[in-house]
Amino acid sequence: MTDLIHPLLLCGGSGTRLWPLSRKSFPKQFTQLIGDESLFQASARRLSGPGFAPPLVVTASDFRFIVTEQLAGIETAAAATLIEPEGRNTAPAILAGALVLAAEDPAALMLVAPSDHVIPDAARFREAVQAAAPEARSGRLVTFGIRPDRAETGYGWLELSRDPGDFAPEAQPLQAFVEKPDAATAQAMLDGGRHLWNAGIFLLRADALIAAFETHAPAMLAGVRDAVARATRDLGFTRLAPDAWAGLDDISIDYAVMEKADSLSVVPYAGAWSDLGGWDAVWREQGPDDHGVVTTGPATAIDCEGTLLRAEHEGQALVGIGLRDMIAVAMPDAVLVAPRDRAQDVKKAVAALKAKGLPQAEALPRDFRPWGWFESLVVGPRFQVKRIHVHPGAALSLQSHHHRAEHWIVVQGTAKVTIDDEVRLVTENQSVYIPLGAVHRMENPGKVNMVLIEVQTGSYLGEDDILRFEDVYART
Amino acid sequence: MTDLIHPLLLCGGSGTRLWPLSRKSFPKQFTQLIGDESLFQASARRLSGPGFAPPLVVTASDFRFIVTEQLAGIETAAAATLIEPEGRNTAPAILAGALVLAAEDPAALMLVAPSDHVIPDAARFREAVQAAAPEARSGRLVTFGIRPDRAETGYGWLELSRDPGDFAPEAQPLQAFVEKPDAATAQAMLDGGRHLWNAGIFLLRADALIAAFETHAPAMLAGVRDAVARATRDLGFTRLAPDAWAGLDDISIDYAVMEKADSLSVVPYAGAWSDLGGWDAVWREQGPDDHGVVTTGPATAIDCEGTLLRAEHEGQALVGIGLRDMIAVAMPDAVLVAPRDRAQDVKKAVAALKAKGLPQAEALPRDFRPWGWFESLVVGPRFQVKRIHVHPGAALSLQSHHHRAEHWIVVQGTAKVTIDDEVRLVTENQSVYIPLGAVHRMENPGKVNMVLIEVQTGSYLGEDDILRFEDVYART
Repeated sequence: MTDLIHPLLLCGGSGTRLWPLSRKSFPKQFTQLIGDESLFQASARRLSGPGFAPPLVVTASDFRFIVTEQLAGIETAAAATLIEPEGRNTAPAILAGALVLAAEDPAALMLVAPSDHVIPDAARFREAVQAAAPEARSGRLVTFGIRPDRAETGYGWLELSRDPGDFAPEAQPLQAFVEKPDAATAQAMLDGGRHLWNAGIFLLRADALIAAFETHAPAMLAGVRDAVARATRDLGFTRLAPDAWAGLDDISIDYAVMEKADSLSVVPYAGAWSDLGGWDAVWREQGPDDHGVVTTGPATAIDCEGTLLRAEHEGQALVGIGLRDMIAVAMPDAVLVAPRDRAQDVKKAVAALKAKGLPQAEALPRDFRPWGWFESLVVGPRFQVKRIHVHPGAALSLQSHHHRAEHWIVVQGTAKVTIDDEVRLVTENQSVYIPLGAVHRMENPGKVNMVLIEVQTGSYLGEDDILRFEDVYART
Repeated sequence: MTDLIHPLLLCGGSGTRLWPLSRKSFPKQFTQLIGDESLFQASARRLSGPGFAPPLVVTASDFRFIVTEQLAGIETAAAATLIEPEGRNTAPAILAGALVLAAEDPAALMLVAPSDHVIPDAARFREAVQAAAPEARSGRLVTFGIRPDRAETGYGWLELSRDPGDFAPEAQPLQAFVEKPDAATAQAMLDGGRHLWNAGIFLLRADALIAAFETHAPAMLAGVRDAVARATRDLGFTRLAPDAWAGLDDISIDYAVMEKADSLSVVPYAGAWSDLGGWDAVWREQGPDDHGVVTTGPATAIDCEGTLLRAEHEGQALVGIGLRDMIAVAMPDAVLVAPRDRAQDVKKAVAALKAKGLPQAEALPRDFRPWGWFESLVVGPRFQVKRIHVHPGAALSLQSHHHRAEHWIVVQGTAKVTIDDEVRLVTENQSVYIPLGAVHRMENPGKVNMVLIEVQTGSYLGEDDILRFEDVYART
């Protein structure tokens, strides 16, 4: 048991630089930016298999069901999912994971990893992690240093104490952390060969990390201990105590302890890695063709160079003509166009849309709920049509509406429908009518997803016209 | 009666340079490119009021119901709508209009106008037309010359016989037609002040035009006479005889007769005019701001210059960051991005999509039918949801399907539904079920539009799974 490495997947963040694909309600780590899996799924899969325990996940409350669903999608489940009441950067999140793990086994080895990075060669990365294990078991805090291939100013760097030679994954003492450098410093580090990129990935014993907090951030340790001790269980999620969490500093693990600790080692990693910090990075990682062009989905590039054309929906064609070093990302509800060298200004777009009150700034058309998801297909005068997906075994709340009646047509699977005192099964190609005011509930009693089309009619169709009587997800 | 001017609106064309807004199934003239009306509606309205008779319209079969619906939208109707069996450029279309008009009144004055141009000052243009009337009544073929404001190489030009002076709308003999010039020639004509743009707008007596064809294109006159003589009436449309039409030359009115006739006059027009020949022209006509930026719909420009950002759908946000002299047009099913100076290459995009077999090349999601229109809201495995609009008094064909059942939920108006031997009225918030194989029909017996949501389920959901038994639009 103690031989296993416990991945701690950090996935509470929500950046804006990959808008419109990444939104506050469904951030980057859950999107399919590269390949067929989300970055989170790829991260979980990368740290699985022989030698790895099921992952611990730290996430935000809004994302807890996405985490469960995405892990189920790769046929795995978290050992525990910790819910941060609010984002407080990486230090409290990682410490909470260490405390939860140490409660079972203080000497447990924990691999701390962001869940929104790309590391294409998973086997090679796992080998590097296993190679670092003896050093971590000895009580050292091991970080991984990525071999740089350009003078990147967007990353922090790690200074080695000796030449990495042929980049064998051998641990050596870390000389120093280097903050995001200017271009000249970055070039000098690249040329010198003694500096690697800081990927924010650590392998360490839970008790060694806790000891480092004891020394360098004792107030945070006390606060996080309290938040973990008074955590509540909710449908299998571990909700850290909000009042304890509220008092914690918003600080990264590097600032809180790593830069102060003297027991740090670094293991070089010579494989490919990217934090996908913007659309320019996505373009680079997707592998541009001979003209520097990357297309995804039904996108067509005519006489383009150095350009990323992403069409995120099968039904939406994107065409670029004569583009040079541009990014265009098309979704049915939002489109972004910018030069590649302005990729870091995408956050300005999000701020501008937010200021205009446009929902696209933060929300996707698809709304994820504990029981599945829905999306609005069309909104007209006095009517709305929704597509609703309900997971096997899931149930919506028992509810009623003051202003609308609903027609439900099941198009896949079987629904168990309660209307006032009557319960019935409704299967594919059958419909039911929910009169205005009727108390009703929809459940999926089956083993496959249930999909239904809901046609609402009425004078007011807002999501807030809902009176909840009972809810298995405690939302009444 | 003979004092009235009869507009002949040409709207059979379907160019590709304004894709994705303009498509083969719903071309430019019917789109809202500028202002709240379509270009066709604005053209019809421009040539209406005191002194103008109801318009004659020449269009393609696929567009006949769009013509009727758009004219109804501005509370007018065509005196006659001629259906061209195939596009044959402007000469046969205009001649057919003249023959139809001459049958009633050989001396009738006809104002021939494309329906996809922009002439913002309608009152001023009507004045110019009225000013040209005496010249046309005398039997001259009068064309209108637009005052140029740039050395445009995309238009044909008209050479005057004398200086236009203050551009009073006074007729003078036309010296010559000039084909689309090179840049140096265009600049010389602009500087010389003796050349105007050829807008393809004519005022002439029907019999004078027929006489010109008699002289310069007698074979075409014989063919078009035959096509008109053997035209059939179909729901109020006049279908020109296809076999006669098939033998006609594909040729413009300029080439066929105007460049050869010696009875041409020109009336100068100093107001604004554009043929909106591409997205660069749309950008120019929409009135760029101080930064040269034009935005339409929910579009946001951040640090852009010289750029057109058009978001055609309320639910789709378009954001441009740091763009210079670019065009971006976003629709839910298609997005175009190109530099402004590549606007003429948009036709390449259409060709590329057509080669890929993508429906967006030529079709819109909304499908116009004699009875109204429908659009697919979502297509899933074994199901499809459609929104269907039926005009007052209209009826779909009596039909059945082999592979699908349908649920209909009326969300606006009242439907008269026939299912096998049963007929019933279904009103807002009511639903009916059409079993697989049932013979059924949907009608709108009311005075307002009827809107329903159709949920199809079945193993095959193609439009071609339809067996028509009766159809008021003769499609069985």
